[in-house]
Order: sequence, then structure tokens, then C-alpha cells
Amino acid sequence: MIGQEVIAAFQALLGAKGVVADADDIAPWLSDWRGRYHGAAAAILQPDSTEQVAAAVALAAKLRVPLVPQGGNTSMVGGATPPADGSALILSLRRMNRIRSLSPRDNLVICEAGVILSNLHDAAAAEGRRFPLSLGAKGSATIGGLISTNAGGTQVLRHGTMRALVEGIEAVLPDGSIFHGLDALKKDNRGYDIKQLLIGAEGTLGIVTAASLRLVPAIAARAVGWVGVPSPTQALALLRLCEARLGDSVEGFEVIADDGLGHVLSHIPGARCPIETRTPWHVLIEVDHGDLSGPGPAERLEGALAEALEQGIAADAAIAANEAQAEAFWRIRESLSEAERAQGPALQYDISVPVPRMPAFMVDAAAAAEKRFPGTTASSFGHLGDGNVHFHVRAPKGTSDGPAWIAAEGQAINAFVHDTVVAAGGSISAEHGIGQMKRAELGRLASPAHLHALRAIKAAFDPQGIMNPDKLIPRPEEG
Amino acid sequence: MIGQEVIAAFQALLGAKGVVADADDIAPWLSDWRGRYHGAAAAILQPDSTEQVAAAVALAAKLRVPLVPQGGNTSMVGGATPPADGSALILSLRRMNRIRSLSPRDNLVICEAGVILSNLHDAAAAEGRRFPLSLGAKGSATIGGLISTNAGGTQVLRHGTMRALVEGIEAVLPDGSIFHGLDALKKDNRGYDIKQLLIGAEGTLGIVTAASLRLVPAIAARAVGWVGVPSPTQALALLRLCEARLGDSVEGFEVIADDGLGHVLSHIPGARCPIETRTPWHVLIEVDHGDLSGPGPAERLEGALAEALEQGIAADAAIAANEAQAEAFWRIRESLSEAERAQGPALQYDISVPVPRMPAFMVDAAAAAEKRFPGTTASSFGHLGDGNVHFHVRAPKGTSDGPAWIAAEGQAINAFVHDTVVAAGGSISAEHGIGQMKRAELGRLASPAHLHALRAIKAAFDPQGIMNPDKLIPRPEEG
Repeated sequence: MIGQEVIAAFQALLGAKGVVADADDIAPWLSDWRGRYHGAAAAILQPDSTEQVAAAVALAAKLRVPLVPQGGNTSMVGGATPPADGSALILSLRRMNRIRSLSPRDNLVICEAGVILSNLHDAAAAEGRRFPLSLGAKGSATIGGLISTNAGGTQVLRHGTMRALVEGIEAVLPDGSIFHGLDALKKDNRGYDIKQLLIGAEGTLGIVTAASLRLVPAIAARAVGWVGVPSPTQALALLRLCEARLGDSVEGFEVIADDGLGHVLSHIPGARCPIETRTPWHVLIEVDHGDLSGPGPAERLEGALAEALEQGIAADAAIAANEAQAEAFWRIRESLSEAERAQGPALQYDISVPVPRMPAFMVDAAAAAEKRFPGTTASSFGHLGDGNVHFHVRAPKGTSDGPAWIAAEGQAINAFVHDTVVAAGGSISAEHGIGQMKRAELGRLASPAHLHALRAIKAAFDPQGIMNPDKLIPRPEEG
Repeated sequence: MIGQEVIAAFQALLGAKGVVADADDIAPWLSDWRGRYHGAAAAILQPDSTEQVAAAVALAAKLRVPLVPQGGNTSMVGGATPPADGSALILSLRRMNRIRSLSPRDNLVICEAGVILSNLHDAAAAEGRRFPLSLGAKGSATIGGLISTNAGGTQVLRHGTMRALVEGIEAVLPDGSIFHGLDALKKDNRGYDIKQLLIGAEGTLGIVTAASLRLVPAIAARAVGWVGVPSPTQALALLRLCEARLGDSVEGFEVIADDGLGHVLSHIPGARCPIETRTPWHVLIEVDHGDLSGPGPAERLEGALAEALEQGIAADAAIAANEAQAEAFWRIRESLSEAERAQGPALQYDISVPVPRMPAFMVDAAAAAEKRFPGTTASSFGHLGDGNVHFHVRAPKGTSDGPAWIAAEGQAINAFVHDTVVAAGGSISAEHGIGQMKRAELGRLASPAHLHALRAIKAAFDPQGIMNPDKLIPRPEEG
């Protein structure tokens, strides 16, 4: 555990408000929100300016004290949980929660790393704009964490991941120097793109302190449809048809297996199937309109869906008649994880493969997993258009002790699913990052050239290894 | 100069076809196309497969022979010219010119680094698709070079630079290992994005051998307009209005000063001003339509321009009545550089600043340059919507010896323009990269954190310094 004299040095630097050393105040930040990872830390540093972050990192570098950057502590992979031996301090960005500027005319906002996503949504909405990235943890997740994990969500199809929305970045590098890159330059070819390197680096190369983010116009009108399709292949054909007919206005396109829908209908009060026919697969589609010229989104979506029905791509379809119905459609999608949890223990994978291969993957990988692990049921749902689904393997019916099942079967199922993904040219982490959860699997599966590049970059930026230790980069014995 | 035994070793590895050692055959590739930089090389290696590139790089690493990757040799900054002392060999990708696959349904093409841009355009067009990046050198520039310089062009406003179009990359790293990243994953959070690092690295971190590139639908119909505006501020207001009314369909938006137009009218046969009024500034705008539903592009552009005229944003406007006229409008834009050259000697800068600051920059920086260097005239034209213009400082009237003027004034004018750009939060290289031309200026102007990061990455990937030596990374004495 880090000693009192070190804490005192940080207190002298950051002031009383800048260091939390009370064990009760620290406790909630030592475990991840799912309760899978538990760490220890003698203090939380909470600087309130970029200069304070720089000073804290410089002191940490001098004292060789590792730092674990933390935003909303909503990592899905233990990426913000400190080591269990108390060898590191947490550096929280929560006091850096200012929106420095917001220009609706330029569709640009500059905000600090600690700004909570839903607060950014509100600030943009107040100016007739929106920040087109959202996810379940929006009430806690912060901009710095979203950048450091290159977060995704349901709007990636049209607007891209966080990477596509970051126009500039300010960060403190592991030697305490400040990288000033907030100027939003659409073209800048002054060598390697440091901004791109920091996005998705999970705090292992430095600490993002602020960012310039792209805004888009508020939605003037939307249409939400529910479409029953025979298979994921038809779902992808539907997406291609919609893209051809509706262009860039397709804002959401989520695919759901009928058994997933069944779990929602069983476990979520008030949920009902939007179409009359129960088809093997379902698609939730949202079409948006930035302005109100030309035909409205409902009319345009109706045209595309009529064509899909006619071509036999779709078996049944409904368009939400009003905003309440549109929200009910979306609520089904958003309740899937909760409904699956209610259904019983399951292992969940956040994976991607190239879009054209996804329909076959969804069917074949599920069948292969069920065959390899008798009694389990496997299915997937999610962002077909991004080539990214949440792939679930559920414990055999009647399994009462979930943790025991996971302890017994988890590693073999993990390896099987990840091997299948790699064989399909995919990624074992589409959205959630590597953190500590997938570190060993990354080491096992990454190519030597990839692993070498990751380690070389880490060593180049952080030769002392003080930035978010033991995250993302596989240990030597891991590959 | 590299000796015969080294050449023989590469010949043994790559075969007779894989090594060009005849001085006459090498000569055209030793100078850049503008004739500014001249190098020497005992041989050109020309492997014809990724495995051959990997073998050649591994041998070069073993023998510590630096390699200069070359595509179409169209660098604007001496980025592909070997050192003058003959200490390096050229590695040309020209034999790797296969399109490995092209899927119109998936809007994806996988092609090798040596594919020439216009050949890719043709291949995409044959399948009803297009690759939405184009530039003057398209008949020579290759995909590998375009990726390694993160090329731009006139379609960046809608489709982004090369970075936005690369979905996957295959590259040989400086130790001869192959980075296999061709799978086009829309979401992949397995740590630092190596692909992003190689894009724009100018061959200093490895050699791009192939890429997966995004295609878009062919243009079903387009409308091209010419608009006279009082100032760049109004030009930007016009862009914002068009974006609000026409959404993502604005494919081109180029701003031209009236004196630039004047040079075209004076020097380019057959050129005429598309509008009746000569206004201080002009905008060339193209609106495209992927499908033919709803109102056509001409009708939609007409509506937006009528509004602009009514609001006083525009002073005069014309829409091309047919495709021949549309091409004539574009020819004016494309003839600007040639016309400027005919006008007399000039120094040309490829710079960017944040879009909102660009209108003031265009006016103020030109006035400041003219004041600081009496007799010169300065103006700019280009991609206002990208915050990127070509900024020209022309020699005083009557200057007959251009090279002498540049020798006498060049360095001071360079420093002045670059300082002005940096003061506006901009980049001294928007599109062309650093190469050898801007290396020292990058060293002078980059922040310590930025310089440190560039050098650390270079050293991490290429500890022996064998990849495109003396390019991009400022020498120690340069900053």
C-alpha cells in the first residue's frame, strides 16, 4: 500500500480538495459496477484543472507511483479498477466537469473529461443540437472514459464510434507534459495522429483531460419500425435496401433473435410484440430527418418496407404510430440484457466480425456453441450494420448456481467463442475494450506483429509503466 | 553508395524482376515530380507480393539498409525522394497493383498498395460504385501513397480524408513482420489502433502493402453551382445554409478569390466567368444525389441559393444547365494552380485552421503578408468547409527570376505564414504531409509534447531508423 508521505506530497500539490484519503469515500470506486473486480487504493486524486492533472502526473512519474484514471467507473472490462495490492492511486476526473464552450453554429462543443454523457446531451439539446452517441450508462459515463474506450452504442451505424466524433483532444502524457490538440482541424497531416492513438488507449498512454466533439442537428422527426425477417441474411438485405432508399437517414438498425424477444415478453412488464407474426428474427429500425423538406421519415420508411415485403425480405412489419409507440419499440431492445439476466445465468460476449460475414456468424456460431457445450443455448442481438453483436451463451436450463457454472465452464466457453470470432476475421472486443478482463485472451489471440506494436507503443509513451498498470497490454506470460 | 554485394543479396531474394539496378531505369525515380529534391539510389526493389515485401524488409533490417517506399512518386513535400548520399534503396510498390476483391454489395474493395487511383476509380465505376477521393495526380498516385499521406482532395467535406475511407490495412513493419489488418471491422477495440498510426505515417513506420477501402454509390445526378459572395464570411454562411437545407448531399464546396478567377480568365483558353457580376469572392458548389427519389439536386440547390440571395449572403448565382457547363465550372477550380503559375513566381502553402476561423484568416493573413513583404500579393482558395486552403504569396510584379526571389525571401515568408497559421490554431500541413520539405518547420513549431510523442513512436517502431530515413521526424537540431 502506498504510504502516508506520498499522499501528503499529493495533498501539498493539489490541496485538501484535491485528494480523497477517507476509506469510506474511496470504497465505492475500488470495484467495478458489475462487482467482478476489486482493487485497493490509499487515495483518490481529484485535480480540477488540466494544469493540476499535469502536476499530479509529473509528481507520480517522479515518485514512480502508478495512476488509474477514472471517469464514471462504468467499465465493462475492469478497465478502471485499481490493482488489488494498493500499489496505485486512483486519479478521478470528476471535478473536471465543465463544458468550456458550445457553438451550435459550428456544431462543436469543447468539454472536459469529467463531463457526464447525459449532461452533454442536455447541453446540446438546449442549443438545438445533439451529441449522437448514447449508451445505457449515460447517466454515469464520462467523456474522458468514452474517448479512452472508443465507446459505441446504437447510433454508430450513422455517426460512427467516439473516434468519429472527436475532433480534438487535450491530454496529459505520462511525463506530465500537456498535449494541446483541442483545435478542431478537419485536415492535419503533421505526422502520426496522436489523437487517434489516445482514443481507445484506456488511459494507458496518458490522461485525456478535454476534447472537442462534433455535434449534429437535433432530430426534427423520426420513424421507428419493427420488421419480422426469416434470418439474419434477410436482415442484412433489409439494411442494404434501406440504405439504398433512405441514404444516410438510417439512424438505428438493431437485430434481435425471436428467443430474445420472448425473454423480454416473459420478464418485462407491459412489453408486447409490435408485429402480429412471430418470425425467427426481428429488426428494429429508426429513420431520422434533420429537416422537414421532402417526404417525412414515416412515409419514406413505409416505402422501403413495402418494397422489402414485396421482395420477400421481410415477413411482417409495423411502423410506430406515435412517439409513445416508438419508445415502446426501443424499450424492447433496451430491455434485452435485463430480460436475459432474468432468464438465467449466461456468458456475454461483445464481439465483431466484418459485416458481410455477420449473418452466417450469428447462426453458425450459436449452433456450434450449443453443440460444443450441450444444454447451453446461444443467441445474439445488436448492431448488425456495424458487424457487432452481443453474443450470449446461456447456462443449461435449471442451472441454479450461475457462478459455479461460470467457474466450471467459463474459460472453455470464452476460448471457444473467441476462437470462432478470430476465425471469422473478427474482434474479441468490439465496444468494451480490453481492460483486465480480456488482457490474457488478447495475448493469446493477437498476431505477433500486433502484440509487438502494442507493447512498443506502451513502452515508448510510458516507459515507467505508471499509467493504468496491468490494463490492455498482455503480461509477458500471456502471449 | 550501397555496394554491389548488397544489391546481389536482394536479387537473390527477389529474383531478377524484383530489383532494378540499371541507372537509366532508376533515374526518373530519384527526383520528386516538381524537381525540387534530388536523391541517389543504387537500386529499386520491386517486390510483387506482401511476402516479398516482408522478406525484403527483413533483409534490409538485417543489413541495416534504409528503404524509401515509393508509390507514384507524386509527393508534394519530397516524401518519396531518397537521400542524396545513396545510403538507401528505393522500395517501389508498383508491381503490387492488383485489386484483390471488389464487392459492390458490401461497398468494399481490397486493393494492393501499388494500385493507381484512377484505376481504382474505373474499377469501382464498372460496378456502379465510386471511390470518393480524387486529386490532380490521380493518374499516378497510388493507394499506398495516398494512405501513407492521408490524402485529401475536393470531396473531403462529405467523405473525409483517406483516413475515413480506410477500413482495414495490411502492412510490413520495420522488422519484416506482417501486420494483418485487412478485415473491415467497423468496431474493434483491441487496444491502440495500429491502422490509424500507419495512415499518414509517410512510410516511416512500415510499408502499407494493401488496404480495404470503402466505396459509395455512384452519383445518380449532380448539380453544380457558381455563387458570387462578398467575403469568405458570407461563403461560410452559405455553406452552413446549404448544409441545413441539403444535408449530406453537399459534395463539393470550394472558395475562390476573384483575383484567382481573374488569373484563370487571363491564362486559360476558353475559360469564362459563370456569373455576370464580378464579386470579391466566389463559391463553387456541387450537390449530389445517390438516388432519384424526391426533388432532384438542381431543384434543391436552386432553393438553397434563392434563400441565400434573399438573405444577402450571395450576390449572384448560376447553376450549370448541363454536364458540359458543370465541367466548365469545375475546370476553373482545377486550373487555378496552373493559372497562378502563369501569372508569375509564387510561394504556395497547404495549411488549415479551424473552420470557424478560416474566413477571417483568409482576409487577415493575406493582408498581413502583403504588409510584411511589400510588393507581394497574397490570396487563397480551396476547401473552406474543411478549414483548408491553398495560401499563395506571389512575388512582386515584374519579378523575372523566381528562384532568386525564393532564395532571398522564401525562408522569411515561410516562417511568417507558418507562424500566422500556428497563431490561429492551425496546421502547417493540411494535406501534403511533412516529408523533407516541412521537417525543420515542424521541429520549430511543434509543442515539446507533440515532438516527443512523434519521436517516441518512431523509435518504438523503427529503432534502427531504416524506414524512409530523414522524413517527417525533425532532426535533433531542428527542434
